[in-house]
Amino acid sequence: MTVTRQDFRDAMARLGAAVNIITTDGSAGRGGVTASAVCSVTDDPPTLLVCINRESSSGVLIKANGVLCVNVLASGQRDLSDIFARPSKEVGAEQKFAAGRWAVLETGAPALDGAVAAFDCRIADIVEKGTHSVIFASVVAIRLSVSAQPGLIYYSRGYHGVGQPTES
Amino acid sequence: MTVTRQDFRDAMARLGAAVNIITTDGSAGRGGVTASAVCSVTDDPPTLLVCINRESSSGVLIKANGVLCVNVLASGQRDLSDIFARPSKEVGAEQKFAAGRWAVLETGAPALDGAVAAFDCRIADIVEKGTHSVIFASVVAIRLSVSAQPGLIYYSRGYHGVGQPTES
Repeated sequence: MTVTRQDFRDAMARLGAAVNIITTDGSAGRGGVTASAVCSVTDDPPTLLVCINRESSSGVLIKANGVLCVNVLASGQRDLSDIFARPSKEVGAEQKFAAGRWAVLETGAPALDGAVAAFDCRIADIVEKGTHSVIFASVVAIRLSVSAQPGLIYYSRGYHGVGQPTES
Repeated sequence: MTVTRQDFRDAMARLGAAVNIITTDGSAGRGGVTASAVCSVTDDPPTLLVCINRESSSGVLIKANGVLCVNVLASGQRDLSDIFARPSKEVGAEQKFAAGRWAVLETGAPALDGAVAAFDCRIADIVEKGTHSVIFASVVAIRLSVSAQPGLIYYSRGYHGVGQPTES
């Protein structure tokens, strides 16, 4: 069989994933984008990876600044996910960031209040693969929400909360 | 702050992820392991990545065979996840595979009946990062379950079903 782009997208819709806002700030400017393609690589030294479209303005900013923060969204932050998923041409960075409250950990990349976890990172390596950049990032600071809130998962082209106290 | 391995693990527990069984077969032998570190890279050409511990016997087999299948588990397949998460020293491949029903798509790597999606892949590139291998794999065949079943998510060190018809 030949796997088309649409086949691949339809199947990938069934790989549930956490919803994250990837932010950056620095000499190239502030930016942020919603992304689900984030995963742990190794804990020695603590390293994760993020796949970002090479053409996206946020991807360009992240690479130019050399820092990023992975903000793992809580179930109640779907609106923020939608806002940061919109193209920068339609919604500017100022407007996007005005929708949340932010702090700074170590690198200067914005860390979102209320996120279930924030991983503040410096870029260690970038591997270009087709349309996307695979960014390997060293985790230099972490912030967790105080309580273990429900997380936000994107599955089958819809949002789902996981880990509610009432869930078995 | 200094991010310890335990800090990183505790935070990563809050990054919800689909549960997958990564299988392989070929001249080096058949193997399989449970893994959540899988993500989409690019749809042109259809490519995903899998992070596997370099020391694991399944990782060695996957690399030697040059093929793998990512089987995305359904909510009802938690037992299979647990079985394939056990060390090969404790549970041999024959015993693991006996717990499910399998087919072959194109590469010969086992595709699990009842998985919400199976991505049959040939390894395109491997990047070694610390304790783990990041395996870039070209998707050569796909099989989807007929109905859109609930998926299986690992979040906050527990299993969760997502996408149940009764869920809002």
